[in-house]
Amino acid sequence: MSAVLQEIVHPAVTAKKASIAPFPASEKVYVQGSRADLRVPFRKISQESTHTTGTAEQNPPVYVYDTSGPYTDPAVEIDLLQGLPALRDAWIQERGDTEQLAGPSSDYGQARQHDPALAHLRFEHIRAPRRAKAGANVSQMHYARKGIITPEMEYIAIRENQRMESLTELYARQHPGQSYGAGIPKIITPEFVRDEVAKGRAIIPANINHPELEPMIIGRNFLVKINCNLGNSALSSSIEEEVEKMLWSIRWGGDTVMDLSTGKNIHETREWIIRNSPVPIGTVPIYQALEKVDGKAEELTWEIFRDTLIEQAEQGVDYFTIHAGIRLPFIPLTAKRLTGIVSRGGSIMAKWCLAHHKESFLYTHFEDICEIMKAYDVSFSLGDGLRPGSIHDANDEAQFAELKTLGELTQIAWKHDVQTMIEGPGHVPMHMIKENMDLQLEHCHEAPFYTLGPLTTDIAPGYDHITSAIGAAMIGWYGTAMLCYVTPKEHLGLPNKQDVRDGIVTYKIAAHAADLAKGHPGAQSRDNALSKARFEFRWQDQFNLSLDPEKALEFHDETLPKESAKVAHFCSMCGPHFCSMKITQDVRDYAASKGLSDQEALNEGMEEMSEEFVKQGAEVYRKV
Amino acid sequence: MSAVLQEIVHPAVTAKKASIAPFPASEKVYVQGSRADLRVPFRKISQESTHTTGTAEQNPPVYVYDTSGPYTDPAVEIDLLQGLPALRDAWIQERGDTEQLAGPSSDYGQARQHDPALAHLRFEHIRAPRRAKAGANVSQMHYARKGIITPEMEYIAIRENQRMESLTELYARQHPGQSYGAGIPKIITPEFVRDEVAKGRAIIPANINHPELEPMIIGRNFLVKINCNLGNSALSSSIEEEVEKMLWSIRWGGDTVMDLSTGKNIHETREWIIRNSPVPIGTVPIYQALEKVDGKAEELTWEIFRDTLIEQAEQGVDYFTIHAGIRLPFIPLTAKRLTGIVSRGGSIMAKWCLAHHKESFLYTHFEDICEIMKAYDVSFSLGDGLRPGSIHDANDEAQFAELKTLGELTQIAWKHDVQTMIEGPGHVPMHMIKENMDLQLEHCHEAPFYTLGPLTTDIAPGYDHITSAIGAAMIGWYGTAMLCYVTPKEHLGLPNKQDVRDGIVTYKIAAHAADLAKGHPGAQSRDNALSKARFEFRWQDQFNLSLDPEKALEFHDETLPKESAKVAHFCSMCGPHFCSMKITQDVRDYAASKGLSDQEALNEGMEEMSEEFVKQGAEVYRKV
Repeated sequence: MSAVLQEIVHPAVTAKKASIAPFPASEKVYVQGSRADLRVPFRKISQESTHTTGTAEQNPPVYVYDTSGPYTDPAVEIDLLQGLPALRDAWIQERGDTEQLAGPSSDYGQARQHDPALAHLRFEHIRAPRRAKAGANVSQMHYARKGIITPEMEYIAIRENQRMESLTELYARQHPGQSYGAGIPKIITPEFVRDEVAKGRAIIPANINHPELEPMIIGRNFLVKINCNLGNSALSSSIEEEVEKMLWSIRWGGDTVMDLSTGKNIHETREWIIRNSPVPIGTVPIYQALEKVDGKAEELTWEIFRDTLIEQAEQGVDYFTIHAGIRLPFIPLTAKRLTGIVSRGGSIMAKWCLAHHKESFLYTHFEDICEIMKAYDVSFSLGDGLRPGSIHDANDEAQFAELKTLGELTQIAWKHDVQTMIEGPGHVPMHMIKENMDLQLEHCHEAPFYTLGPLTTDIAPGYDHITSAIGAAMIGWYGTAMLCYVTPKEHLGLPNKQDVRDGIVTYKIAAHAADLAKGHPGAQSRDNALSKARFEFRWQDQFNLSLDPEKALEFHDETLPKESAKVAHFCSMCGPHFCSMKITQDVRDYAASKGLSDQEALNEGMEEMSEEFVKQGAEVYRKV
Repeated sequence: MSAVLQEIVHPAVTAKKASIAPFPASEKVYVQGSRADLRVPFRKISQESTHTTGTAEQNPPVYVYDTSGPYTDPAVEIDLLQGLPALRDAWIQERGDTEQLAGPSSDYGQARQHDPALAHLRFEHIRAPRRAKAGANVSQMHYARKGIITPEMEYIAIRENQRMESLTELYARQHPGQSYGAGIPKIITPEFVRDEVAKGRAIIPANINHPELEPMIIGRNFLVKINCNLGNSALSSSIEEEVEKMLWSIRWGGDTVMDLSTGKNIHETREWIIRNSPVPIGTVPIYQALEKVDGKAEELTWEIFRDTLIEQAEQGVDYFTIHAGIRLPFIPLTAKRLTGIVSRGGSIMAKWCLAHHKESFLYTHFEDICEIMKAYDVSFSLGDGLRPGSIHDANDEAQFAELKTLGELTQIAWKHDVQTMIEGPGHVPMHMIKENMDLQLEHCHEAPFYTLGPLTTDIAPGYDHITSAIGAAMIGWYGTAMLCYVTPKEHLGLPNKQDVRDGIVTYKIAAHAADLAKGHPGAQSRDNALSKARFEFRWQDQFNLSLDPEKALEFHDETLPKESAKVAHFCSMCGPHFCSMKITQDVRDYAASKGLSDQEALNEGMEEMSEEFVKQGAEVYRKV
């Protein structure tokens, strides 16, 4: 095996320790669907029992949505050189509407395949790509509109329900949400999934050439999802680093991963990532197309771009960011901006439009692009190339002009049954965020919104995961279906593993806060379980139920390392004397001792209180 | 000098390096008020010029609100053993309504002063305390209501305006805000400050025994402030650590500091902190009172508590958290909660109420407390002892019953011209946050709201600075005047210096995001300046203008350490080819070359576009 392959295996080895180690007290469980090969994974977190005077109360396990794929399942032998098992293979073949090609049909794909110089970099077990039979449309939206419930849809219904039926009364307790008109049902059925996809309100990014994928859905009436970015640049990073970043991203909860590579060997890097990824992979094809013309935007052509789309579609990319909304007349609208055009793809296309003085080939060939998308079931992520890059430029004419165009393009895509989501800002102060959501719903006909942040201030480089988590949580609440994470390195550099972890956990917080605010059924159960553990001083359960158990444990141990402290009925914040939780037990006993309902207790208290007033009234209001 | 004093000096020494070092490109400047001894500090951040083809544009300096006191002024000789100069001394004496006592009038204060065993711990230059002359009221609210504009009020007016008059057109540009009924004027005048304090809508925490204080204001119509907590506990920390934490807190932007010590030598620790603090110091006196009865809540008495109030008031504590809103009838309402009573002070008083079966002495002696407050100008921070400790318990009957009582107590305090703010939650999902603000405004008659977070989910211990920054930014936008910071160690342990820094910067972000959303005049200027620097690749200016310049620089250098990179017109995210900012310049040149206004450019573009439609229309909508 070559040195580089050795290197590429390397992440798997370290992964065994870091990226792949099961979480504490956690076990991978599968819920069986209607067919033998439909098994939906969950992470089952076991809890200790509660010991109060004499009695021991069992605390039920908590089941959480699991994006980590087979990696955290000790029963599965991981081999990055082989890639993941193709769990959707049978589903795709049974549909009988695809054919296996002899090999890549893109010029570039063929060239890379036959370049001996790349042998040492190439993934060893590349499948011949599949494509829709002539005239066929293999998109999940196409099936949905024909009334077909695919295994992918059933899989998603089971996954989104998160075993809610297993919740106890206490865990199921939840505040009614404010969903701003979203239509979230109590139970997600396969038929509901189909209907949402048919209406275009949700997408299932699932390229037929990515059978390793564990199906997931992006839509306003489902759990809010998060995307993580990775990718090498001309300046740094390598294949094995990117594969490791992908493993790391899904471990911490990334629902999708975008490969934004702009450096060397993009094609090979992508192959390694997709073959080993259980989550949808998105790309921005214009980045690679630009590499093919040595970075000279004006030399881009439809033919080069088209070949790139096919190249990537046949590798299994699940969604493409396409900046087709940048129209020539919108470009001058950005001239007076403080920060101009900050979207990379947007600025590339703007440059092209100016150089050629015409509408971009993305716009003029949009229907040609749709033809490619539906032949592989690649979803659109219509890019917001004119998103604001500063608070100053938020919600301006250029931004909303493009948004309208994205709505028009959405309807063209839907005419082809091509799944579509819409990308959103950017930098927006809190009070201007909702307008973004409202206009997106209006102009884009409820196609899923996929936003970057938004960052609510520009003044904290180094902390932009936080400036943006504030905006992300809010826009998620208002209806955004997927949040693109921002790491602490935003504006400053490429994220390392720690930055990726910080960015993901921060965005899991934003997404979950949004689910709670929307009143997503069952969303509060994990909060209830963790808070009960906290109240009962089940420290270990508190750590295990948290988004980042390792960090919680590590922080706790900095002040109270002793094992005993983890069972102690106090913590380092208050010490033994001051424990408020402990004192609260007295309150319970007090109420219990009188066998009072809350209301009775209130009345009873009121009497005592009024007696007090008689006795001490003079005290309370005495003049001085 | 004793070993301990040596230790205590030690922070000053390290401080010289860390806590006290001026920020890069920053200089402390003072704006002269109407009297020689009224000089308001700002941090002046200088910028490089912008070099574009041939021309060099000067970029004006940015003036920012500075909480760090004399410490970041290299011209000032820092000596923690001496304490800070008493800049308000003359102002207080001129009012002629106070007298200097022979010594502490509290039993405890006297005992500590005469205990030889404490000599090695004691601050060496303790002033004899001041107190209002018999019958006098020395609160800023009392002066305000008599129509007197104090030097403190003038100082605050200058400080809050942040030298707005110096803003250029570009920096002054700002989105109109949504202030939910706040009444923020374009210019803050001393008279406006007086009027807000007179109405009770803002407070100036400024104990006459804390003359070292640089006056600041807490109110909905002023900049949103943040509080940082420090304090030793029975389990850890020491005097010098606490002093160093205070220096560290104000360096990063803490507007006030609460000393929540519950361990040894609370009295001496507090003296060291106050004598060296330019920001208001708050405490929760019941913590120390409890220490005096060995942690047995039921043994607390009004006499012990009263003596503690006087002890602390004479040291110069600027505001007291008093949990007088916990009434006997409310306690049973918490019995059915998931996490009961989580406020330490709240649980102490609840325990007392249950043990004695009567209303607490805080409630029955509330007017006696007012008498003490107005004799030293200590402000009330009415504690929310029944705040929810989990999402499950948010906005419940117990919480809002207490809030109503806090409103009644506010009116009693105002009857005595005692300044008052109200503490708020806690754990609240996003969609239930606004109700907290609305009810607080209604029940508490627009007294300033001072909230902890709120945390918007319970599932991320280790990241609760983030779960709470989301809620803090939102409630700050809705009208909260001061945000109590939460560190990553919340629920897990006592924060170290890094946690304090993370917590403060996170809360500066939340407070600033709120100022932007409210449309606070001038709030956007720092965002505009930083974004302009970013767009122009003035990397150093971008770092210098950020909330944490050191972190921004450090992150940047991780990927592009070379000095050259700091002037390079690209960054590690995109590399030389892909720079969107660079491409944007072409757009400008394009628009400029035609000397177009935005609208003309639009029209002109529209023409081109329509030509395109004619030429390529068939392309755009061609059937396949």
